[in-house]
Amino acid sequence: MGKKPHVVIVGAGFGGIAVAKKLAKKNLDITIVDRTNYHLFQPLLYQVSTSVLSTDDISYPIRALFRDYDNVELFMAKAQSIDGKRKVVITNHGEISYDYLVVAAGATNNFFGMENVEKYAYGMKTIPEALHIRNHVLHMFERANKQIDNEEARRKMLTFICVGGGPTGVEEAGAIAELVAIQRKEYPNLNFDEVSIKLIEGTDKVLPMMPPHLRQHTINVLSARGVDVMLNTQVADCNEDGLFLKDGTFIPSRTVIWAAGVKAHKLASTIGTECDRAGRVIVGPTLQVPGYPEIFAIGDNAHFLQDGRPLPTVAPVAMQQALLAADNIMHLCKGESQLHTFKYVDHGAMATIGRCQAVVNWGVVKIGGFAAWMIWMFLHLLRLEGAHADITVGTKWFWNFVSGTRLGRIITNIKLEDEE
Amino acid sequence: MGKKPHVVIVGAGFGGIAVAKKLAKKNLDITIVDRTNYHLFQPLLYQVSTSVLSTDDISYPIRALFRDYDNVELFMAKAQSIDGKRKVVITNHGEISYDYLVVAAGATNNFFGMENVEKYAYGMKTIPEALHIRNHVLHMFERANKQIDNEEARRKMLTFICVGGGPTGVEEAGAIAELVAIQRKEYPNLNFDEVSIKLIEGTDKVLPMMPPHLRQHTINVLSARGVDVMLNTQVADCNEDGLFLKDGTFIPSRTVIWAAGVKAHKLASTIGTECDRAGRVIVGPTLQVPGYPEIFAIGDNAHFLQDGRPLPTVAPVAMQQALLAADNIMHLCKGESQLHTFKYVDHGAMATIGRCQAVVNWGVVKIGGFAAWMIWMFLHLLRLEGAHADITVGTKWFWNFVSGTRLGRIITNIKLEDEE
Repeated sequence: MGKKPHVVIVGAGFGGIAVAKKLAKKNLDITIVDRTNYHLFQPLLYQVSTSVLSTDDISYPIRALFRDYDNVELFMAKAQSIDGKRKVVITNHGEISYDYLVVAAGATNNFFGMENVEKYAYGMKTIPEALHIRNHVLHMFERANKQIDNEEARRKMLTFICVGGGPTGVEEAGAIAELVAIQRKEYPNLNFDEVSIKLIEGTDKVLPMMPPHLRQHTINVLSARGVDVMLNTQVADCNEDGLFLKDGTFIPSRTVIWAAGVKAHKLASTIGTECDRAGRVIVGPTLQVPGYPEIFAIGDNAHFLQDGRPLPTVAPVAMQQALLAADNIMHLCKGESQLHTFKYVDHGAMATIGRCQAVVNWGVVKIGGFAAWMIWMFLHLLRLEGAHADITVGTKWFWNFVSGTRLGRIITNIKLEDEE
Repeated sequence: MGKKPHVVIVGAGFGGIAVAKKLAKKNLDITIVDRTNYHLFQPLLYQVSTSVLSTDDISYPIRALFRDYDNVELFMAKAQSIDGKRKVVITNHGEISYDYLVVAAGATNNFFGMENVEKYAYGMKTIPEALHIRNHVLHMFERANKQIDNEEARRKMLTFICVGGGPTGVEEAGAIAELVAIQRKEYPNLNFDEVSIKLIEGTDKVLPMMPPHLRQHTINVLSARGVDVMLNTQVADCNEDGLFLKDGTFIPSRTVIWAAGVKAHKLASTIGTECDRAGRVIVGPTLQVPGYPEIFAIGDNAHFLQDGRPLPTVAPVAMQQALLAADNIMHLCKGESQLHTFKYVDHGAMATIGRCQAVVNWGVVKIGGFAAWMIWMFLHLLRLEGAHADITVGTKWFWNFVSGTRLGRIITNIKLEDEE
């Protein structure tokens, strides 16, 4: 790769892409390693899983993002481990050596060791997983429609469980409720009283980053739309026919969607330094990995203490850390020993609950309802990569709103495949 | 299903949907049987396979088409055979009895008995097949980019063969040439002189429905864009590493796309009456199957002689036959014995060759070039189901045109799955 310093960035999520964008203009060679060839706009993944948007609307080819920079290359591969002594990343397509490494490999589902949950529940972290949920949920309606004489089978097929009361679980449950309302118009022979949607949360609250009145607003909206919100409810086990709770209850269901926890990509732990229980590397104030000054870990892969607590695994943290890591890499390239230290600035949070309903918590602005929903839509369109996507996504949202339908209800009959 | 006559329509293609739309307003119960839950706008399938459009742009949920008609139901299943004596269609989800049956199950790839071609070549008739081609072609660039020291491997990965000089083969080859031109800007380390695109045709002409000067225009445009058009060239065999021609030549390639022939869905032949070599049922002048006055076969499933030749397997034939079959079913319902006889009115044909280039043959209007391309785009938008799709597809086409990129270049890592 020539004589320029070689920066390897593992992961093309919000953090990795922000590092690469900042460093692309510098006199560096940059290689992005990712198992896919696209940057995924994860906040809208639940809309792919619920037939609102298409894959292509929320995925942007990584090479297209950097088409004006010949010094940025993609190496599409699964990063398997890091050898910090030899300064190489080991992938399923061979090794890549680096001068500087940014570990931004993101997170994966955390099933907390429950093997059956991992086997039978549906994760919702990737495009194939979202398509899998979409296909499966739509299939359940078609199959229930054929079970003319078997109410028990129908009810099991028409029970949809989301586990986890964070933004993903709330958004998914709300979107399924909306989808059901649309399906209702198109299955003249199906009894929609048999449909059940449950949102299961282990603690006593949904959306913990929201103030109490907006948490209550969220529960009120979901309940009004037919979602049974079950707080203080822990999952014990799962099988093909349903979900076991810790209190011994069994809920018959063919669809358990898991949004109850994430853990860091296993790559982070292969450096060999100290990690937390979720597999995140404990980094110093400059985001460097202790003992490896040329390795930075950011976002879901970094455990960074601020005010005595680790920062949450959300996109704004990853993006702010990305800019600092990029700055620090430039300082190291110039031989400067004084690096910047990181401080997260929390600008607040928002979540959508469904049609016309969202909650926003920005300092003194704490609102729920239609205005919050408009803000949520506007900001998500702004943040989405690609002007064409603003138009296609905007069109679909508008169409959904005025026509009360969802045209992505396409069963594509695909299954997850390991990368080549 | 009550006392109303029950019309079963197998297939939700252009023919099946046209029958259902015409009969939906009548006092009938209608069941559409299809292995998918959507109507596919097949003429734009090649644009899904070449990263221009998304699945959802060209697929429309069947139930959404008939949401205002409670008398139209979808039965999502694979139709396996017809028992004309018992008046039932046998599917993988059980039997459905009918009073009137329309066989509109469409066509599938015809590999003319070449097992290795069926195994190694890529068909292009369904959404999963199109996504499979998209994923595979994009993968080939990523993989070739990693073969730094192996030119032979790179060339094999970068050779794309389309077999069949009809509209599908021409459109696919032209679209791949355009895709390559876009990829060129984003692989700084790949030598694009190693890319080869071939269009192989067994006869001495491409687009046989076009006049000679437009056929020549098509070849000129394709050649100028780097497609090697090989006429009078027959395929003998295929393996993982390339294609064998009848003259003994072997072309190393990982990508052989098959657009060289179709045959009727095997359902048509299960009635037991006479079929042609492509599996199409020989129907009478009223489109009824001989001996079974309540069974109609249309489109790709019907062999209909007009002016001494069977009609071509194109959408306009299916749609005109659909309207006549629907009329004749209404006559039979009313107990009228006098049925209409079918006559196809040929309004001409068109095909696109790529960016800014198409050919149109409408009676006295025989044009090629930019104007033909504009006509082609306009008419395809008109014919597409769903106003939202006109906007999303129009946006994508416009964006492609002005930005010179294709944002559907997303490798989703999925594989084909049998329907549940």
